Amino acid sequence: MRGEVIPISEATIGVTDWGLTHADCVYDVVPVWSGAFFRLGDYLTRFEASMDAARMDVGIDRRGIKEALHTMVATSGLQKAYVAMVAARGTPMVHGIRDPRACANHFYAWCVPYVHVIKPETAETGAAVYLSNMTRRIPEDSVNPLAKNYHWGDFTQGLFEAKDAGFETVLLPDHEGNVTEGPGFNVFALKGNTLVTPDRGVLHGITRRTVLELAVEAGLTVEERALPIDALLEADEVFLSSSGGGVTPVARINDRQFSNGAAGPVGLQLRSAYFARLEDSRFRTEIAYT
Amino acid sequence: MRGEVIPISEATIGVTDWGLTHADCVYDVVPVWSGAFFRLGDYLTRFEASMDAARMDVGIDRRGIKEALHTMVATSGLQKAYVAMVAARGTPMVHGIRDPRACANHFYAWCVPYVHVIKPETAETGAAVYLSNMTRRIPEDSVNPLAKNYHWGDFTQGLFEAKDAGFETVLLPDHEGNVTEGPGFNVFALKGNTLVTPDRGVLHGITRRTVLELAVEAGLTVEERALPIDALLEADEVFLSSSGGGVTPVARINDRQFSNGAAGPVGLQLRSAYFARLEDSRFRTEIAYT
Ligand SMILES: Cc1ncc(COP(=O)(O)O)c(C=O)c1O
Ligand SMILES: Cc1ncc(COP(=O)(O)O)c(C=O)c1O
Repeated sequence: MRGEVIPISEATIGVTDWGLTHADCVYDVVPVWSGAFFRLGDYLTRFEASMDAARMDVGIDRRGIKEALHTMVATSGLQKAYVAMVAARGTPMVHGIRDPRACANHFYAWCVPYVHVIKPETAETGAAVYLSNMTRRIPEDSVNPLAKNYHWGDFTQGLFEAKDAGFETVLLPDHEGNVTEGPGFNVFALKGNTLVTPDRGVLHGITRRTVLELAVEAGLTVEERALPIDALLEADEVFLSSSGGGVTPVARINDRQFSNGAAGPVGLQLRSAYFARLEDSRFRTEIAYT
Repeated sequence: MRGEVIPISEATIGVTDWGLTHADCVYDVVPVWSGAFFRLGDYLTRFEASMDAARMDVGIDRRGIKEALHTMVATSGLQKAYVAMVAARGTPMVHGIRDPRACANHFYAWCVPYVHVIKPETAETGAAVYLSNMTRRIPEDSVNPLAKNYHWGDFTQGLFEAKDAGFETVLLPDHEGNVTEGPGFNVFALKGNTLVTPDRGVLHGITRRTVLELAVEAGLTVEERALPIDALLEADEVFLSSSGGGVTPVARINDRQFSNGAAGPVGLQLRSAYFARLEDSRFRTEIAYT
């Protein structure tokens, strides 16, 4: 923050920053695995695209961001980490001016030990996922889902519904009867040899991209298109993808069980393939720990 | 913050607080005018309803919140102020647990000199307002608009469109062709003797309530119902309501002029009536400055 590495307990932003009061941040999260960033270039490219979409200029170029992340993670000593980079709108340069163009945008980053969106034990046996019939994903003509953002009110509401009903996490439908994504992950449905994942109204996850690549390598046909709820529930297997834990097979959605309530074989195979890819030098940027 | 009055430059929240990373705050803003809170009870009641809707428990009751606001504003010495109270989700009590029920919610408040959402000079002559044809208000089945919240991505996008096109601020339509509200205000349309304001998909502004009361006192018929865009553009007068500046007549929406491009007479009359009401002892809670 402000060019220095500090303890996370001291990393704060002002209560009047539009990053907070207008949820006006874009961000990205790159995983660090056994001492290297995974697909760093792809995450940085997405972060830059998010800043462009939000019309933010943080005054630091790609090289500066890369250096900041390296220094921070090296200082932390973390070999497996969840590394967040954030661009915040800031506050208007004149009190009372309500023009987003007049704000001093700023950049910061933070890291913590690697986060699993779904606990690994649960992922191995297959997660129980709640498909909300009440809360719908914020549509793309309200908030652009491609610019990775903090507008999680729909997910939080959905998580309450899911947890109250005894499920691990939630998937949200859109307003047209298709499934979209969940808090921190994309979703895939496998039917026969064909793997489908939603393309519209969702973040284009980097893990989603890795899974699509691994699926093609495994001989599956992949389709990025609308995924109707019916098709989701009729799939042979369903799984989730996230930088926080890779591929998570789904054992159950509401009262529909997949693979007799266990993790499916293709989901588990892609899960292993994902963890193997984290160790693949073609995708790694090693960190020089000090 | 944390029971103490501190300079606003030191008032911050942690970068991992879900209040920030999931825009998981509810808040309220009560105006202070010539040394008194206006309709304090109504704002506190709405704030409590927002916390209930978001399932937050900040561990302070109404009396404690009231005392905190009094002490803070008295210490600030501000006679006219914008006073924000916030409930934030906090962070999970165990690292890596992604359950909103497991977070330590917390309360804080801040105040700054009174904010006019639209500059008073502009309000007097009538504001130029942009009705977006691209960005739609986040629907109520995605994020509950009655729980006053920081999900402003749609407004921010709309503000960019408005400012780029040379307008003061923006109004957003919903997905059904009705108008909703704008960044910090509700909207009213007057046709003949009938005043209409949207009821669904919007925050129920306290200023909106004051305007409805003043309109009835002035002999108008008031209706809270869906306001189609066509009806908005065919109105005799349009105006906005906000705790940040009261009633703002609208002179123009896109290329449609009202009152020949000036502030309308009823809008101006309600504007004066609102400022008079701010001085009405029935609605005031005096602050004991120290
Ligand atoms: C809303 C949403 N969808 C999908 C994802 C998965 O994206 P990635 O694979 O890049 O982590 C995330 C990641 O946090 C997310 O927040
Ligand atoms: C989205 C939205 N609508 C309407 C309003 C007006 O409400 P009030 O009159 O209570 O200030 C606000 C106030 O900030 C708001 O944020």
